[in-house]
Formats: sequence, C-alpha cells, structure tokens
Amino acid sequence: MADMPHRPYMPHMPHPFDAAIALAPTGEHTFSGATQAAYANMVGPFGGTTCAVLLNAALRHPQRLGDPVALTVNYAAALADGAFTVDARAVRTNRSTQHWSLSLSQHGEVCATASAVFALRRPTWSATEAAPPQHMPDAASLPRAPLQGRPPWVRCYDMRFAEGGMPERFDAQEQAHSRSRLWVRDEPPRPLDFASLAAICDVFFPRIFIRRRRFTPIGTVSLSTYFHADAALLAAQGERHVLGCARGVAFRDGYFEQSAEVWGDRGVLLASSQQLVYFKD
Amino acid sequence: MADMPHRPYMPHMPHPFDAAIALAPTGEHTFSGATQAAYANMVGPFGGTTCAVLLNAALRHPQRLGDPVALTVNYAAALADGAFTVDARAVRTNRSTQHWSLSLSQHGEVCATASAVFALRRPTWSATEAAPPQHMPDAASLPRAPLQGRPPWVRCYDMRFAEGGMPERFDAQEQAHSRSRLWVRDEPPRPLDFASLAAICDVFFPRIFIRRRRFTPIGTVSLSTYFHADAALLAAQGERHVLGCARGVAFRDGYFEQSAEVWGDRGVLLASSQQLVYFKD
Repeated sequence: MADMPHRPYMPHMPHPFDAAIALAPTGEHTFSGATQAAYANMVGPFGGTTCAVLLNAALRHPQRLGDPVALTVNYAAALADGAFTVDARAVRTNRSTQHWSLSLSQHGEVCATASAVFALRRPTWSATEAAPPQHMPDAASLPRAPLQGRPPWVRCYDMRFAEGGMPERFDAQEQAHSRSRLWVRDEPPRPLDFASLAAICDVFFPRIFIRRRRFTPIGTVSLSTYFHADAALLAAQGERHVLGCARGVAFRDGYFEQSAEVWGDRGVLLASSQQLVYFKD
Repeated sequence: MADMPHRPYMPHMPHPFDAAIALAPTGEHTFSGATQAAYANMVGPFGGTTCAVLLNAALRHPQRLGDPVALTVNYAAALADGAFTVDARAVRTNRSTQHWSLSLSQHGEVCATASAVFALRRPTWSATEAAPPQHMPDAASLPRAPLQGRPPWVRCYDMRFAEGGMPERFDAQEQAHSRSRLWVRDEPPRPLDFASLAAICDVFFPRIFIRRRRFTPIGTVSLSTYFHADAALLAAQGERHVLGCARGVAFRDGYFEQSAEVWGDRGVLLASSQQLVYFKD
C-alpha cells in the first residue's frame, strides 16, 4: 500500500500536478488558484508547486514571449492551504527577452515574490562543463524511496536514490557531506515541461536533514533555477525519470545553501538550481 | 603606468565605489543616483555596480531589518551612462526576515529589477561543503592582471589570476574548460562590505571569453548571490584580497550559466553567485 499514489488517478482526470498549478484569469494581470491536498507539505504546500504556479502565470499570460530561461522565487511567508492570487506583469519585453515580476498573495498579503526571464532561443555553439554523475545505476534497478512518515507531496514523485536518500530515522549521526543522486519523475508519470521541471528542481530534501540526520525547522527563503533545455528537449525527455544531483554548499548562522542539477536520461543538463534555506539550530 | 588607478584617488574624497553606489532619497521608497565613468563597461556601467546600487537602496532604507542573505538582479535592458532612479519596497517584514522588491529605471523605463532577502542572523551549527581551491599562490606572488584594452571598471579592481585570466588576445583556440582562480580587491583598497561583495561577485569575466578565446556580444540577464558572511566577517576581511573561483556550467542556444564563490583569505566562504548570460554565437 505504501506505493499507492496519494489518491486514485483516473486517466480522464487532469494530472494532479496540473490541478496544483491550475490558474483562472481574474484580470489582465491576475489569476486565482488553490493549493491541492496531494501536494501538501508539513506546513502549507510543497515549495516546488509554488515555483511552478508562479512560472505558470507567465507561461499562460497572453503577453508571453518565448520560453523561461531563469526563475527566482522568494518565499516571504508560509502559505496556508486554500485559495491564492497570482499577479504577473511583463515589466520589459525586448526583441528576444522578456522580464516578469510575479507575486503570490493570500488575503491581500504577499506570500511569495518571483522574477522570471523568458527568451526566444536559437541554436548556437554549445558545451557543458558541469559533469553528470558517473556510474549511476538504472532507475529500474533502484527501489522507490519509502513514503512512510513523509509529507503528502513526496507521493507525487517517484524517487529512486543511488546516494543520499532521506534518513529513515533521525539518529543524529552527522555525515561528512549531504550529496544526493536520484532518479525522479512525476507520479503518476507526466510528460516533462517547464512547470514540472521547475517543481522537480525543489524535490531535493533540505540538505541539513541529510547532513545532520536530525530534525530541525527549516524554510526556503529564495530559490533560483536556470533552464538549459528548450521545449523540444523537454518533450524528448517525456515521462521518463530525470537524474537529480544535489549537495550542500555552506551552512552558517541560521541559513544554508544547497545546489542541484537536473539531467535528462541521455546526459543533457536540463536545469540547475540553487536555494538558500533558513534553519533553526 | 598600467598599474595606476583610473583617476587619482585623494584620501579625503569618497572612494570611487562609494560614489558609484551613492543614492539620494527622493521619496519614501525612491532614490536617485548616477553612473560613474570609473565603473564604465563597454556599454553602460559594470553590472556589479548595478547589483550594488540596488542592494544599497535596501541597505540605506529606513525600514531595513538585518543584513542581506540573498540578492537576485535581472538585467532587463542596457543602462545608459547618466542618472537613474531606484525604487525599493519592503514587501514583507517578518520577525527575523525581510523581503525586498527593487527596480532601477531610466527615463521611466525599467532597466533592472531585483529582489533581496534580509535577515537577522544568529550563531548556529555551521559547516562548509564547498571546497576552497588548493595550492593557491599568495596574492603578492602573482602579477596584477593587465589593464590594457580592458574597459574602465577593470581598473577599479586589483585582480591577480592563478588560473583562467582574460586572454590577452582572442586567438579562437577553444579551451577545455573556463575555470578561473584569482585574488581580487577594490582598487584603491576599501574595507569589504555587503555592497562591495555584491559587486565583486560579478567581476568574473564572461566564461565564454575564457572558454572560446574569441569575442562575442554578451549580456547577463539574471544574477543571484547568497551571502554566507555576516557584517563582522566582512569587517574582519577588511581591505585584503578575497579569493574568487568561477567556472562555466553550461552553454547552450544563446545562454550560458557561470557560477562562482568568493572566499575570505582565511578560508571562510563569504558569498556564492550564479548568473545566466546571453551570448551571440
């Protein structure tokens, strides 16, 4: 039973992720949406869906130009379960780039702000200096990460760790590092797109849990993602698992940074992501 | 003569960096400033000063709480030399964190947007997983990077490269990577603070120049910096050189990502930074 999705998924229903990021226009620059129980975190919704909702407002906006290349989300206050409003404005549109200012509010209070850069991309010389992990076992050869005791959103992803899974127990045995390598995809499977990739960039558990193996209150304050893939590369990836790598950068005085890359299963870098996270000692 | 600063520096005058980031309040949330010739780039001002100006508006704002922990700047249009306006609003102030929305405009048009997170930090368990470079020669043992043919802002920094300096000639001999390691400080020397550290996070030349050794038009579209140091650590660093490390992450379809860390000379990580840069093939 532990492997069952959070709620039955009927093929004729929208995918739970699409329900979580659904937005209804309420004005020229405003949309309404609501958190979904499937993506609930310990308090409020999974932060990855908040990223995806904000990005989705720009993706769906009639003034949209091109595809996202950069997204920064600042988590200003805990979101409550329930309805929210998104404000999305193209503050500057150039020939091939467009800059968005976005915010998500509840009861008239800003809970998250975001900026996004969209661009019309064209083929150029290309090279990747970041290195994908070596000797990564196939997804099929790894067990799905346990769901027991995890918040609901974890059931919305099929995660298969080769290294650095969430500790089964918090035994306070501090580790030398907080690296993780895992295969991950939406559960149930869903073709990869910019919104789901933005959310996947936030599936990496807080590095402090991996490193210290003890619970502490945490909360991301800022998350930035760069998209290296275009829509065609995402479409080619389809529903298959992507490869995520995450690590801690530094932990100090109540804040830590973690960084991550998401690779396609054919070795192409799809996105990179950094976040700064508050922690209580 | 190549080692002379761009203009004579008189100890009783403000440091050129302070002149470049100077802001005069013009309203509750607005400031005016002007680009300075000393920090001119090939077109408009050095992007690092734009970061520092935007951060400075929050630093100087009467509502400011704590110190910066995160800063994202989106470069929406080329800045012209001359006057600009900065708008700085604390969109949410919590007990220990504060979220800022910032923008820089010229002639009523937005040229850059930014967000910043400020925080009251307190001592906690700390660890650094990122590794400082090994076998870095002392700053004094390395020559200052040549200034000939460089834009004016380069003269405002004393840079001493151990690896990956700007090519003296663009011979189009593509390199296997674009890593750089250098000692850098303001020239003339100036005690390190959050504004100058934000600017130093953008002194790393565009990685595509290092990698391809050929000129191509480029422009940063988004830059994010996390501050791991508090004010006391910055004060302890003083005017001494900091150690910068930069590398390319990926170059594809008109955009590349580069990442960097800035270390104090006693091995403490002061800041990390990522940017996404447009390039023309």
